[in-house]
Amino acid sequence: MSRPPAWRTDAARYPHSVEVPTRFQDLDPLGHVNNVAMAAIFESGRVAFNRRFDWPRGDGTRVLIARADISYLAEAHFPAPITVANGVGRVGRSSWTIFSGAFQEGACVALCDATLVFTGAEGSRGLPNVFREALERTMAGE
Amino acid sequence: MSRPPAWRTDAARYPHSVEVPTRFQDLDPLGHVNNVAMAAIFESGRVAFNRRFDWPRGDGTRVLIARADISYLAEAHFPAPITVANGVGRVGRSSWTIFSGAFQEGACVALCDATLVFTGAEGSRGLPNVFREALERTMAGE
Amino acid sequence: MSRPPAWRTDAARYPHSVEVPTRFQDLDPLGHVNNVAMAAIFESGRVAFNRRFDWPRGDGTRVLIARADISYLAEAHFPAPITVANGVGRVGRSSWTIFSGAFQEGACVALCDATLVFTGAEGSRGLPNVFREALERTMAGE
Amino acid sequence: MSRPPAWRTDAARYPHSVEVPTRFQDLDPLGHVNNVAMAAIFESGRVAFNRRFDWPRGDGTRVLIARADISYLAEAHFPAPITVANGVGRVGRSSWTIFSGAFQEGACVALCDATLVFTGAEGSRGLPNVFREALERTMAGE
Repeated sequence: MSRPPAWRTDAARYPHSVEVPTRFQDLDPLGHVNNVAMAAIFESGRVAFNRRFDWPRGDGTRVLIARADISYLAEAHFPAPITVANGVGRVGRSSWTIFSGAFQEGACVALCDATLVFTGAEGSRGLPNVFREALERTMAGE
Repeated sequence: MSRPPAWRTDAARYPHSVEVPTRFQDLDPLGHVNNVAMAAIFESGRVAFNRRFDWPRGDGTRVLIARADISYLAEAHFPAPITVANGVGRVGRSSWTIFSGAFQEGACVALCDATLVFTGAEGSRGLPNVFREALERTMAGE
Repeated sequence: MSRPPAWRTDAARYPHSVEVPTRFQDLDPLGHVNNVAMAAIFESGRVAFNRRFDWPRGDGTRVLIARADISYLAEAHFPAPITVANGVGRVGRSSWTIFSGAFQEGACVALCDATLVFTGAEGSRGLPNVFREALERTMAGE
Repeated sequence: MSRPPAWRTDAARYPHSVEVPTRFQDLDPLGHVNNVAMAAIFESGRVAFNRRFDWPRGDGTRVLIARADISYLAEAHFPAPITVANGVGRVGRSSWTIFSGAFQEGACVALCDATLVFTGAEGSRGLPNVFREALERTMAGE
C-alpha cells in the first residue's frame, strides 16, 4: 500500500478484532516476530473475520487470495499477544479487500490489505448480492 | 502492486534465481501451497539473493523489511519445486525494493515486491554508495 | 513414549497450563491440526512454562532440546484453542524432561516428552542446585 | 527413542534419501534450525518416501501419524541443505514405523521414528498384505 491513511493505525476504526497470541515459532534470528509469521497472524485474524459472513459454499465456489500487501511499521515481540483488527476495504465485482491492522501493547505494528476473489471452474465469479451487501455493512474506517 | 508489467512474469528478466523445493508443510486445507507459505518461499529466495551483496554489518546496522506485497497469480502445488527469480526494483535513500517472481513448472505463480530498509539506533540510515552501486548493477527487467 | 500412564491425559495432574489458540496455518490438507503444528503448539506452551524458572544466563549456558517425543491421541481442529499443560517429568545431571499434554474441548489430543539439556562450549553442564530444586518442586503427576 | 543403535547415524543404512534444503524460516532466535522446523523437514522427507508405496486410497482409509519421536544430535544450520534418509523400522498389524536420519554436511544432526497408522471410520485397519510386503522390502538398517 502506498502511504496508508492515518486512520489505518487506529484500532477503533475497524469493526472487528480478535486476539492472536504470538508463538515462539514466530521469532527469527533477529529476535522479533518474523515478517512471514506476521502474515500468518494476519491470516488467522482474517479467517476469524470471514466467519462472520455466510458466502456460498458447495456450489464449486472457491475463495482464493489474489494479493496480500503488508506494511511493517514496528517490530513485534514475543510473548505479548497481537490484536488483529479487520474491516472491509473495497468491494469489486468478484473480489473484495480486507483491511487489517496488527496491534501489540497499544501500538500498530503492521497493516495488511488482502484481496480475496470468488472463483469457480469457469474463472472468477460475481459476488452474490446478499454477500456484497453484508460486506458493505462491515467497512473499515467508518 | 497495481497491475505488474508483463515482463514481471518472465523468469529471464531477473538477474538471479534459486530453486526452493516445496514442503508438505506448505499445503493448507485447500490442498495447494498456502499464501503464507509462498511468503516464506519468497523470503528464502530473497535471502539467497541478498548473500550476493556485502552490506555493512557490525556497526549497528539492521536491515528490516518495511513492506511485502505479494500477488498470487495461480495456485502452486506440492511436490514440484518453485524457482524464485530476484532482481532489484527500486533504490531509495535508505531502502530498496527487491522484485521477485515465483515459477513452478514453467508458469509464474506469484510476484513479490519486498522493501528493505537500513536502520540504526538513530532511525533509517542512508545506503552506503558502494552498496547502492552494487544494487544498481543488479536491476530486474533489464 | 511407550504406553504413557493414564494420568498423563488428565489436565489436573500438571502444575502449569497455558492456552494456545490454534491458527489457520496449523491445518494441513487433511483439514486437521498438522503434527508439526502440534509440535509448535507444545513448544509455545513449554516456553511459557520455562519462564517460571530462573536459570543461569549470560555465562555461556545454552539450553538445547535433545529430544521431543510426541504421541498423537486424537485429531485436533481449528478454531478451538488448545490448552497445553506442563510439568517436570525427570531431572538428570545436566538435563531434564518436561511432560506436556495438549487438551482441546476437554479431550487430550496429544502428549509430549521434551528433554532439555544445559550446554556450554565445553559440552553438557550440570544443572545448578537451585534450579534443580525448583524443577523438583514442579513435577507433573503429583 | 532410547539410545539409538550406532547404524542409525549412517546414511548408507537407509534405502531411500531425499535432499530438503533449509529455509530462513527454519531459524529461531538461537540462530540454528529450530526443533519444530526439523520436524517439518523430517515430514517432507517422509512424504517423499511414502510416495514409493501404493497404499489403498478412496475406500475411507486415512493414514494418521500416531507418534513422532525426534532426537536432536547436533545443531543444524542455514543455508546448507539437509538430506533426509528413510527406511521402514517396524511393521505392525495396522501401523508401521519409519526410521529417518537427517544429515547436514556429512554429520547426522537428528533422528526421527515416526509411527503411521491405517484408520477408517471403524477405527484402526489392518495393513493390506501387498502393502505390508512392500514395507518389509524397504527396511532400514539392512
